[in-house]
Amino acid sequence: MKRIAHWLLAVATLAGFVGYTATASRHAGQEAPTFVTKIPSGYRDWQFISVAHEEGNLNSFAAVLGNDVAIAAFRNRTIPFPDGSIIAALHYRFVPSEENNKVFGRDQSFVAGAPTNIQFMVKDSTKYTSTGGWGFGHFNSDGKTVDDAFMKTCFPCHQKMKERDLVFTRYAP
Amino acid sequence: MKRIAHWLLAVATLAGFVGYTATASRHAGQEAPTFVTKIPSGYRDWQFISVAHEEGNLNSFAAVLGNDVAIAAFRNRTIPFPDGSIIAALHYRFVPSEENNKVFGRDQSFVAGAPTNIQFMVKDSTKYTSTGGWGFGHFNSDGKTVDDAFMKTCFPCHQKMKERDLVFTRYAP
Repeated sequence: MKRIAHWLLAVATLAGFVGYTATASRHAGQEAPTFVTKIPSGYRDWQFISVAHEEGNLNSFAAVLGNDVAIAAFRNRTIPFPDGSIIAALHYRFVPSEENNKVFGRDQSFVAGAPTNIQFMVKDSTKYTSTGGWGFGHFNSDGKTVDDAFMKTCFPCHQKMKERDLVFTRYAP
Repeated sequence: MKRIAHWLLAVATLAGFVGYTATASRHAGQEAPTFVTKIPSGYRDWQFISVAHEEGNLNSFAAVLGNDVAIAAFRNRTIPFPDGSIIAALHYRFVPSEENNKVFGRDQSFVAGAPTNIQFMVKDSTKYTSTGGWGFGHFNSDGKTVDDAFMKTCFPCHQKMKERDLVFTRYAP
């Protein structure tokens, strides 16, 4: 009987430990979600989804591109996006084009200035469970990532576009 | 001798006629250059060159895409662009995004609105000799071309970008 009690205690302890680590890792996952740490290869050759401009401090000019899986999902209006979808937002400064304005004879033209950063959304519903199935990535123009405090702002904002599976950009025909 | 004179006259006349028609067709070519009358197939799958925005009456948001030949020329800085290069400018209305602004909590976001037209530059130095080797095309969102009076304005304006082989857009890295 004593041996059985020991054995039960051992099982209970083990179960408790497993339960504890599972909870701990879930908590850790919620507190420090996994971000995209490597630039997806070949993104500059991907197809065009749409363009965007943000005023104010961002002053950005964006081209949003998608890999084959993402493009097919956009075109077929597949929601949620399937695993393997990757969306890239190439950000540049939004700058007036003096050379264009000179030709046009008036100030009207804005073009992509210096590249500032590239942001990615990588769909992997297993790996990125805690952030809606999307892994978020941000790489400055030198290829470097940014700190977790910055990265933690991605998901809460994107989550507000729940009806479009966290994707802001609409496909431009 | 009289027969030879006649024959010489005939040759001279013929040569003169040929010369005349060649000149006439060159003149006609200058006055009414050939435009691109058919939308190049597959353009929506082409790769991204850059973005642009024109203020004022145009109020346009453009994505500029290129076929493989054009993309290679942009990346290798090949000037003039080789025959076979095609550049597409997909134009949309430049509109504020109310749904984005709502999420961001401030008015800052502009996106591609309704498509307005697509413009093409097709490089064929034989076919489009009179317009710098480029054929210009403009297709409204219904796929229809526009009148020659409008199309004749393309070349004189693009010609001002001679050092870049008539191409306004610079490649965005």
